[in-house]
Amino acid sequence: MIKQTKDIQVLKNLHGGTGSVEIQKKLTKEDAVEGLDMFAEVILKANASIGYHLHTDDAEAYYIVEGEGIFLDENEQRVSVEAGDLCLIKKGQSHGLENPTEEELKMIAVVY
Amino acid sequence: MIKQTKDIQVLKNLHGGTGSVEIQKKLTKEDAVEGLDMFAEVILKANASIGYHLHTDDAEAYYIVEGEGIFLDENEQRVSVEAGDLCLIKKGQSHGLENPTEEELKMIAVVY
Repeated sequence: MIKQTKDIQVLKNLHGGTGSVEIQKKLTKEDAVEGLDMFAEVILKANASIGYHLHTDDAEAYYIVEGEGIFLDENEQRVSVEAGDLCLIKKGQSHGLENPTEEELKMIAVVY
Repeated sequence: MIKQTKDIQVLKNLHGGTGSVEIQKKLTKEDAVEGLDMFAEVILKANASIGYHLHTDDAEAYYIVEGEGIFLDENEQRVSVEAGDLCLIKKGQSHGLENPTEEELKMIAVVY
């Protein structure tokens, strides 16, 4: 099965963050793919962020494809991340992501 | 948890395919992350391919990040794919990927 949607949603202040985030949701729960609840390409525009937020019912991975940022890990630990880094939280943990740069940060978000 | 390995494995004739494939395995089963068995960044060099092969015990997603190729879907159906396309197979299905171009094809492979 191939999902080829290129639809872009622009979200402002996502989870209480700053600025604009573009999301292309390639797969959602509605696709009923066992083991995957969401697969999305996400762009944090310059100086944008996804606020620190809790995942009560699922786990999520952020994979940094382009750019640099600050990952907010469980317990709000701040860690510098760059292209090639994989940031994981388990069910019941929280996370967020900041792009403090003037360049876009592109990442893949996988909810499972 | 953040996985920052940049170790590259170069595999030739992967699953009976042609040429060279570079794999950066960010996460494997040894990491014991519930719900994810592998997360890797994969580059198919010019004219390289991953041969059509069966997944007996897990499902896999290929997400095309850069380049163009031919996805071999279940039943060996050949489908043109490009950056932004998500290619999914379920447990018990088979897949492969060809890069017939002179440019690299970069993709994310997620086994779950």
